[in-house]
Amino acid sequence: MTVEHAAVWELLADYGALIDMMKFDEWLDLFGAECRYQIMPREDLERGLPAALVLCDSRAMLDDRIRALREANKYNIHTDRHIIGLPRISNDGLAVEAPFAVYQTDQEGETRLFATGIYRDQLELAGARLKIRDKLILLDTFAIPSLLATPL
Amino acid sequence: MTVEHAAVWELLADYGALIDMMKFDEWLDLFGAECRYQIMPREDLERGLPAALVLCDSRAMLDDRIRALREANKYNIHTDRHIIGLPRISNDGLAVEAPFAVYQTDQEGETRLFATGIYRDQLELAGARLKIRDKLILLDTFAIPSLLATPL
Amino acid sequence: MTVEHAAVWELLADYGALIDMMKFDEWLDLFGAECRYQIMPREDLERGLPAALVLCDSRAMLDDRIRALREANKYNIHTDRHIIGLPRISNDGLAVEAPFAVYQTDQEGETRLFATGIYRDQLELAGARLKIRDKLILLDTFAIPSLLATPL
Repeated sequence: MTVEHAAVWELLADYGALIDMMKFDEWLDLFGAECRYQIMPREDLERGLPAALVLCDSRAMLDDRIRALREANKYNIHTDRHIIGLPRISNDGLAVEAPFAVYQTDQEGETRLFATGIYRDQLELAGARLKIRDKLILLDTFAIPSLLATPL
Repeated sequence: MTVEHAAVWELLADYGALIDMMKFDEWLDLFGAECRYQIMPREDLERGLPAALVLCDSRAMLDDRIRALREANKYNIHTDRHIIGLPRISNDGLAVEAPFAVYQTDQEGETRLFATGIYRDQLELAGARLKIRDKLILLDTFAIPSLLATPL
Repeated sequence: MTVEHAAVWELLADYGALIDMMKFDEWLDLFGAECRYQIMPREDLERGLPAALVLCDSRAMLDDRIRALREANKYNIHTDRHIIGLPRISNDGLAVEAPFAVYQTDQEGETRLFATGIYRDQLELAGARLKIRDKLILLDTFAIPSLLATPL
């Protein structure tokens, strides 16, 4: 079955925008009932050492993680902005790669680059809706202590 | 009436590129005959204090503002670069949200992040052409003194 | 002959992703048999002084350059990340402009903005595949000594 590429672009755009608006319940709903979410330093994958920094292999686990982050972020107040670049999409529309940059703005209104990397997503159709089955986030940046305090 | 999503992408791409090329007459022509252009700090909107930093509620006002900025920028020489990320588009194609980052390069050739934020646009069809009826620019960044010296 | 805009987006996405993955043979294969690749400071073009910083006017020359860069980069170890923004595409799909930002991450895992600019590409169809015939990279940033040590 083939998916319209426009639907894939929209899913990616929703993904970034919902994090930036802190609408985490809607964000979670972009994932399939069975799903996996991983963050991995890019160089580890390239060296054949694919140890995830974050691995949530069910939606319940991802839900837990998001709740914990929201609690932690009461003390690290910032806002996020995801800029997602042009994606590469497989012919069937179910495998997608997209580069991203995430910026953070602190309470003084200063914005800084936070991290860059690439998403590698496996998608699935749940009825008429496109969902994320497997999201692998390959991070370029690994020098930021607070790196895992926000969903990427 | 439904608008092709590709036309929305093109309008957004034109919007950024025309500012970056300083083609402000063509840029102004992207707006409808009746239009509004607002810049607002994101946090003010979220707190329910929607006071615009910039509010132009007619095309004549927007034209005036652009002329003033061009004059001012004779003394603050820089070039802009807009990177607009994947947008979210309503089903009818007339409401669109797109994250952006603006970079500025000074006369020494150094490029810095200037601001990030999100566009929230209401579009309209003027004959066959898609135009901007209402542009709300929600800014993440508010710590930059020269922030309003350039169209965003 | 008209080209699907989706094919143009994919070509741009491939272009950035293949550099970032250091898959330079596949990257080279995005160019036509006869091709040109130029890097030029934006301001020089605007002043009517279009002197290229880099000019490869055949695929063999581009191949040579890439090999030289790969050799040089053994001593300047970093990874690249291209974020390519929404492009402007001509009606026939064969002329395209796209803004970009390139980030570099060093061996300590710190990511910095490297350069911004815009691509101006002329494309062609080689059988069913879209290829780059002429790529002009207009650079905003010109203050970075190592600027030409990486393909942009």
